[in-house]
Amino acid sequence: MAKRGMLIVLSGPSGVGKGTVRKALFDTGATDFSYSISMTTRQPREGEVNGVDYYFVSKEEFEENIRNGEMLEYAKYVDNYYGTPLKYVNETLDQGKDVFLEIEVNGAMQVRANCPDAVFVFLTPPDLMELKHRLIGRGTDAMDVINKRIKKAVGEIRMMRNYDYAVVNDEVSQAVARIQMIIRSERLRVTRVMPDYEQMIGDEN
Amino acid sequence: MAKRGMLIVLSGPSGVGKGTVRKALFDTGATDFSYSISMTTRQPREGEVNGVDYYFVSKEEFEENIRNGEMLEYAKYVDNYYGTPLKYVNETLDQGKDVFLEIEVNGAMQVRANCPDAVFVFLTPPDLMELKHRLIGRGTDAMDVINKRIKKAVGEIRMMRNYDYAVVNDEVSQAVARIQMIIRSERLRVTRVMPDYEQMIGDEN
Repeated sequence: MAKRGMLIVLSGPSGVGKGTVRKALFDTGATDFSYSISMTTRQPREGEVNGVDYYFVSKEEFEENIRNGEMLEYAKYVDNYYGTPLKYVNETLDQGKDVFLEIEVNGAMQVRANCPDAVFVFLTPPDLMELKHRLIGRGTDAMDVINKRIKKAVGEIRMMRNYDYAVVNDEVSQAVARIQMIIRSERLRVTRVMPDYEQMIGDEN
Repeated sequence: MAKRGMLIVLSGPSGVGKGTVRKALFDTGATDFSYSISMTTRQPREGEVNGVDYYFVSKEEFEENIRNGEMLEYAKYVDNYYGTPLKYVNETLDQGKDVFLEIEVNGAMQVRANCPDAVFVFLTPPDLMELKHRLIGRGTDAMDVINKRIKKAVGEIRMMRNYDYAVVNDEVSQAVARIQMIIRSERLRVTRVMPDYEQMIGDEN
């Protein structure tokens, strides 16, 4: 049996720039892993292509997929479903190829429950670490603005705890380079290369 | 309290080239971590400098260090002690700096027991993965040579299981690049960056 591929999950708080980073990552042309296209019930926007940007399906079709256990993860936002079909992910991993998902935090937690050996990367807003300096340094923000920002930061840091890596999205090209490094490094993990070695000595021992 | 540094342990089977890779790594000049110099009771060889290559001490001094719990790890080879003094490692980690050890497999397992959050890199001989191809491909080796090589490989693969990463020493410069990548990637681990974030929001929450 061939070694199974690795599942890589990029997620992060809403508005952090997950889609931009994912697009830049695949635009490098240096990716040796596959992008799993999401499925959605929302209408295609101008220029969006079915099977490239999303799989655009009807609400009935999406709900049938859910009922049949054919979604790796899914969520509903503003009356529309978004999710990852299980079939493509499984088939690609079975071929020994790595698969990359870019999904919302709720979806990422569903994947974590089903695929604990996936690699979970949390994209963080560049200002999360600078928050304190900024708030102390400026001293001009209204108290309710400060409190709101701190509350949001606490929520983001709590989310981060469920991930393996934290990548700051200070610059898209930097974030992309860090994600590529994490993927290459994860491929050298003993738990991931061990099946190959064990298979090699399996017949004799 | 400042974040503690990360302990990086490079080990591998005897003769794999750990010392050469470690030296090449530090020769790059691009290392932002400290090398922990080992202590030994063996005689300095021509050109070796005390405090650079090793700390050369007497057998009595080494054994006193052991008795006083001042060694992070140690072992005895051919009547000579080799080990890592705890003091330098702890002081450097406490300053928030990362520390690099290059030690024998027995020592690495002692470190694993004491510092489970260290990063353990296993350097593998380049022929370990090619073993089967070679043995099948050639068909010229005597049976006892084949069996001996397989037995050695099985032992090496068993050792590898106790490590986090496996780096093939096919080319020294390649092995160095992989180790640098692993260290940079490990610095992005949520478990390692989380203390900084928690400290930041600690006062407010």
